[in-house]
Amino acid sequence: MPSSPAATPAPFTADDYRARMDRAVRAAAEAGLDGVLVAPGPDLVHLTGYQPTAVTERLTVLVLTAGREPVLVVPALEAADAGKAAGAGAFGVRDWVDGKDPYGITAALLGAQGRLAVSDNTWAMHLLGYQKALPATRYVSLTEALPMLRAVKDARELERLEAAGAAADAAYREILKVRFAGRRENDIAADLAMLLREFGHSQVDFTVVGSGPNGANPHHEASDRVIEHGDMVVLDFGGLKHGYGSDTTRTVHVGEPTAEERAVHDIVREAQQAGFEAVRPGAACQDVDRAARAVITEAGYGEYFIHRTGHGIGVTTHEPPYMIEGEEQPLVPGMCFSVEPGIYLPGRFGVRIEDIVTVTETGGHRLNNTPREMAIVE
Amino acid sequence: MPSSPAATPAPFTADDYRARMDRAVRAAAEAGLDGVLVAPGPDLVHLTGYQPTAVTERLTVLVLTAGREPVLVVPALEAADAGKAAGAGAFGVRDWVDGKDPYGITAALLGAQGRLAVSDNTWAMHLLGYQKALPATRYVSLTEALPMLRAVKDARELERLEAAGAAADAAYREILKVRFAGRRENDIAADLAMLLREFGHSQVDFTVVGSGPNGANPHHEASDRVIEHGDMVVLDFGGLKHGYGSDTTRTVHVGEPTAEERAVHDIVREAQQAGFEAVRPGAACQDVDRAARAVITEAGYGEYFIHRTGHGIGVTTHEPPYMIEGEEQPLVPGMCFSVEPGIYLPGRFGVRIEDIVTVTETGGHRLNNTPREMAIVE
Repeated sequence: MPSSPAATPAPFTADDYRARMDRAVRAAAEAGLDGVLVAPGPDLVHLTGYQPTAVTERLTVLVLTAGREPVLVVPALEAADAGKAAGAGAFGVRDWVDGKDPYGITAALLGAQGRLAVSDNTWAMHLLGYQKALPATRYVSLTEALPMLRAVKDARELERLEAAGAAADAAYREILKVRFAGRRENDIAADLAMLLREFGHSQVDFTVVGSGPNGANPHHEASDRVIEHGDMVVLDFGGLKHGYGSDTTRTVHVGEPTAEERAVHDIVREAQQAGFEAVRPGAACQDVDRAARAVITEAGYGEYFIHRTGHGIGVTTHEPPYMIEGEEQPLVPGMCFSVEPGIYLPGRFGVRIEDIVTVTETGGHRLNNTPREMAIVE
Repeated sequence: MPSSPAATPAPFTADDYRARMDRAVRAAAEAGLDGVLVAPGPDLVHLTGYQPTAVTERLTVLVLTAGREPVLVVPALEAADAGKAAGAGAFGVRDWVDGKDPYGITAALLGAQGRLAVSDNTWAMHLLGYQKALPATRYVSLTEALPMLRAVKDARELERLEAAGAAADAAYREILKVRFAGRRENDIAADLAMLLREFGHSQVDFTVVGSGPNGANPHHEASDRVIEHGDMVVLDFGGLKHGYGSDTTRTVHVGEPTAEERAVHDIVREAQQAGFEAVRPGAACQDVDRAARAVITEAGYGEYFIHRTGHGIGVTTHEPPYMIEGEEQPLVPGMCFSVEPGIYLPGRFGVRIEDIVTVTETGGHRLNNTPREMAIVE
């Protein structure tokens, strides 16, 4: 049923990672930081391509400081794996054996004083180790210090995000062909997960199926509720393909909708279009939220749009920047995020429409391109 | 092929969790701690039965302090899930909505000063939040402060560990029937994973297949090496069943072994038996290591036994207590850990034999009971 998968993109090179680490070091200096300590997780994947098989109590940390080669401190048992990472040529490796003090090794790469950023998900035991080894240093979480570290994607990352979006679109086209009425939300969710994998996703992060009143809860996932003729159904799904995220939402209807259902769907579609049209370099993140929200508010449904308009996407499916009132961060070409307004009528139904959008030199470019008009399913 | 799975054990009750949290609070007070802050992960599962669907930047933390009801601070969106945890009756819930300061809410449950333990895997951004909200407090990692917090298992936990061990044993009996010669290590590893799942494991943590020279690296997992007639093969596998761990190792031989291979295997078997026999209440962890190591050293292979003799097991497959020289922690009935000596001859072959053993009032009790004699496979 699915078409054959697209070719695997060319792997990132050490130069790609070197450029990202250079950019991080520059951004850190501009933010008044003396260094960045990056733990295993999305930040480390983005900067080095390295992801340990398991995250354990043994310290692994990338040390970034101005004017020095980046160094990955890694348990000796994992040094060979780290040496095989796609970005391995762009950083040095300092391995340590059980019984040695890895915090002392890390501290020797840093000054005795200064302000350091640590990845949000660094284990507390490791932060306590740094604080003990370097008592005069101060710490801040990486997202607080450099929220936009991963926000601007380079061309090779955008290629992957585009492919992930196309795969999610292909999954949506297929799901329209299955039967909804009489089946459980969980069945449709399983279909969606299978389709995402068939179209090349290595990881499925979420497959929301919100039918009838369940669609009115934006945090609903999927349940054993049996979908009925006459239900509105929110479908919100995504995951990772070639290491980059997809995330799209369409709201379909089982059989013919009522006039009210159609009207609400039209308002959300118009709001999503307005949010998309607000995307251009220099606009603030909050402008995207405001543009989408204005449409819904003017239509009288403002109190039923109860979440922010969007979030960034990259090596994870939820990350900065956030399209939310108060976020004055200007949009920059290469940023990539969702535009996903919704209306949620408690106890009745919900509608959400979501595309991933990237900022270009002149405006916005959608990575999801299935019809936003309400599809009728069986 | 596999027999039908055993009955699901009765779920833990709120009283089970209340008893565990009471014990943790008492142990914390004895260790001079003013409170314990438990993040999502194995500690929280053990103490409350609660495991969020995903660990995110939104703060979830169990606050344990002497003389007060335990309180779970949880994002409002996840409060309903937390209320369904098996231990829900044993703790209060304080939910917080986006935009509120969860660190302030947590701080209000603690004193302005004091020494607090945080789960090792607490996110650094949360520890920084506590440190900012309560600048006069000091922190230590939970494993450093209370290494034995989860070490002593109650009867209902031991029942689960026994069932997990029996399932791993069943998987071993089946793997002896498959063909080894001419197949890749990864194929046998996949067979083992499938068998663990068939016998009721919900999670497979590792399936080590170390054939010939690969067996001489105790950190080898499995590779595309094709197993040959004449190979020694280390099989080390485990995971979680009903939330509790299994971990067993047997070393088999493809066809008839040489006299040397048989002799080395006999030494390891004798060492494993000696380690097992050293298990009794009041003995130190290091006594188990010493007993096993003495056998190997006396046989002239001391330099080829290059790891500790064992590690604890419970809601994870690797945790305190550790059977290692220098660990003077006395054994207590209910502790559960591996006894797994080995001999590794570089470039040639390795042998390891491992059972999970629990401490009883009178000695040790094995949770793995397949023959430790060398099995001959095809």
